[in-house]
Amino acid sequence: MAAMSFELLKTSSDTAARRGRIHTPHATIETPVFMPVGTQATVKTLSPEELMEIGAHIILSNTYHLHLRPGEDIVQGAGGLHGFMHWPRAVLTDSGGFQVFSLSNLRKISEEGVEFRSHISGEKRFLSPERSIEIQHALGADIIMAFDECPPHPADREYIYNSLLRTTRWAKRSKEAHHRTSQQALFGIVQGGMELDLRRFAAESLVELDFPGYAIGGLSVGEPKPLMNEVLAHTTQYLPADKPRYLMGVGAPDDLFEGVMRGVDMFDCVLPTRIARNGTVFTSTGKLVVRNAGNAKDYAPLDEHCDCYVCKNYSRAYIRHLVKAEETFGIRLTSYHNVYFLVKLMEKIRVSIENGTFLALRKQFYDAYGYNENAMC
Amino acid sequence: MAAMSFELLKTSSDTAARRGRIHTPHATIETPVFMPVGTQATVKTLSPEELMEIGAHIILSNTYHLHLRPGEDIVQGAGGLHGFMHWPRAVLTDSGGFQVFSLSNLRKISEEGVEFRSHISGEKRFLSPERSIEIQHALGADIIMAFDECPPHPADREYIYNSLLRTTRWAKRSKEAHHRTSQQALFGIVQGGMELDLRRFAAESLVELDFPGYAIGGLSVGEPKPLMNEVLAHTTQYLPADKPRYLMGVGAPDDLFEGVMRGVDMFDCVLPTRIARNGTVFTSTGKLVVRNAGNAKDYAPLDEHCDCYVCKNYSRAYIRHLVKAEETFGIRLTSYHNVYFLVKLMEKIRVSIENGTFLALRKQFYDAYGYNENAMC
Repeated sequence: MAAMSFELLKTSSDTAARRGRIHTPHATIETPVFMPVGTQATVKTLSPEELMEIGAHIILSNTYHLHLRPGEDIVQGAGGLHGFMHWPRAVLTDSGGFQVFSLSNLRKISEEGVEFRSHISGEKRFLSPERSIEIQHALGADIIMAFDECPPHPADREYIYNSLLRTTRWAKRSKEAHHRTSQQALFGIVQGGMELDLRRFAAESLVELDFPGYAIGGLSVGEPKPLMNEVLAHTTQYLPADKPRYLMGVGAPDDLFEGVMRGVDMFDCVLPTRIARNGTVFTSTGKLVVRNAGNAKDYAPLDEHCDCYVCKNYSRAYIRHLVKAEETFGIRLTSYHNVYFLVKLMEKIRVSIENGTFLALRKQFYDAYGYNENAMC
Repeated sequence: MAAMSFELLKTSSDTAARRGRIHTPHATIETPVFMPVGTQATVKTLSPEELMEIGAHIILSNTYHLHLRPGEDIVQGAGGLHGFMHWPRAVLTDSGGFQVFSLSNLRKISEEGVEFRSHISGEKRFLSPERSIEIQHALGADIIMAFDECPPHPADREYIYNSLLRTTRWAKRSKEAHHRTSQQALFGIVQGGMELDLRRFAAESLVELDFPGYAIGGLSVGEPKPLMNEVLAHTTQYLPADKPRYLMGVGAPDDLFEGVMRGVDMFDCVLPTRIARNGTVFTSTGKLVVRNAGNAKDYAPLDEHCDCYVCKNYSRAYIRHLVKAEETFGIRLTSYHNVYFLVKLMEKIRVSIENGTFLALRKQFYDAYGYNENAMC
């Protein structure tokens, strides 16, 4: 029996937005879904109980980081990421490919794989499709990723073409190396830069290999948003309707709307916890820099329309004080609120797809944020 | 009606240990008690709900820090510390005296008060008995402290004598400035350095002023432990049995035992959260430096005999990973465990006083920690 199954519950009539449900060994996930990121086996500052209270059913963790520290053997010894982190719901791990190309030094790419130096210790390491899958087996996530190359942006067409041919060969090798199919579901990753025909080619090549789900990589890498959304729309149409689609590393509120309306089911992004560390939060009317002096005597909650633990119990004045005083609890509160904000936004999006009011919700959100909905396309 | 009342429930027959109960506007506190420290209106890394789950009924916060940042007016605008922090139980504030002498620059002491420069902004500030009480009124703690000078150690006898005469005059002025006696209870602070006769003189002078409780300051300032314990025993005997006694800034596990057996009811210390930030935790058999390499593959809890949230759910291997990776959640876990450890140790001490087994508990604890109980006296 397969580790994962996907139910497509509804497709919008006016956009490509989909309402679905993913069954995994550790959780059932309503889609579209936002996945909080726990890079180093912790969603920064938050406890597993808080993530459950927030309503997260799946979180992401990073193979590259965990391989370097603490090492997958240590995670495996605790019963995989679920036991190590004390997280009972679903986990997704990436393949390490993206970080090898974005974080490590002195990469040497060959057909076999990538030699690189750890950004922590400087020691030489090697990742290949087989090695990445082996590490992801040790980490034990419900959903794992094929090993891929994410080409830089911009890159010339020939580089992108050769890269995606290799990524497709690596996807095949990843699949062949993956034997734990009843415990972990392996997704292929569509690359192809901003070249529409190469995106199609990449998608079709992967679909031939028949993965239980497909990720879309190499977007949100510095290109303008309209271009990202064009490439995205072009890509999802070549992916099978009955398999989940995951847009990697994307998760600003407007990106979630734009991705959903182009048929994406899963998103992840470090944005909510990253901006939280700078004392910035999402609100229903736009971003708020809570550390600004204007909040010093403001006893209102971060967002008047939010019913999260933070907004029910704490004022902007208190949170600003904590952030200014560099108190950890301040970052806990901003992180909690921001993750809650995106998880709840996705809940609202799911309801809107069910009710046929997705575009109205999008317009309402963009109006409140002062965004121009036409600028996204 | 007075803000606070104290019930003395039992006095040990073989030591000066006491079992009591303090009633305050926001909580009833079983004594002896350990009070976690929330210097900047937050017990570092922990939420109020976690502190309640741990079993804390009173926490301490610092007048000096809150006066400088965010300013007592901002705290008062939120309804005082209870509203600002979202902490429904009792709070105690110190007078700012200790920090003025230990943290600030360019102090100028006069009969009127102390001029100093903020350690944050460098600006000139002035604290006096009247000003300290005014600030503590704005902060709104259940228990507040008279403004005192904590002389350096060592200091010559004449300095200590003149200082304590002034501290006693300041205590009188603090009392005269304190009109909110039905909302907040004001304690006097016994100083006197390591001079036994001056400690007696200071205690007797304060007792004449009739405070609802007495703090003992100027200990644990660098003197050897046997000397501290001698001065402490000498001081408590001149304090009335029917008022609570608070040993300021002291809270290593052995200090709690030694303080309790000399008749102390209340303790506070930053130690549990401070060592937690370095990855060190208390266990029933001594301190554990969880960041050490030896814990890398140790899937045991921090303390096999602890039933706290952390020990029930997380391994040394996971916590070591988080601490090494500089993840905030690691410090949350070590802080939670350490505060729990001291709060629970006090619970055990209270039960042992009730049962007449205090000295047996002390011996058992010292044996497990490898301490020599005779070295403390």
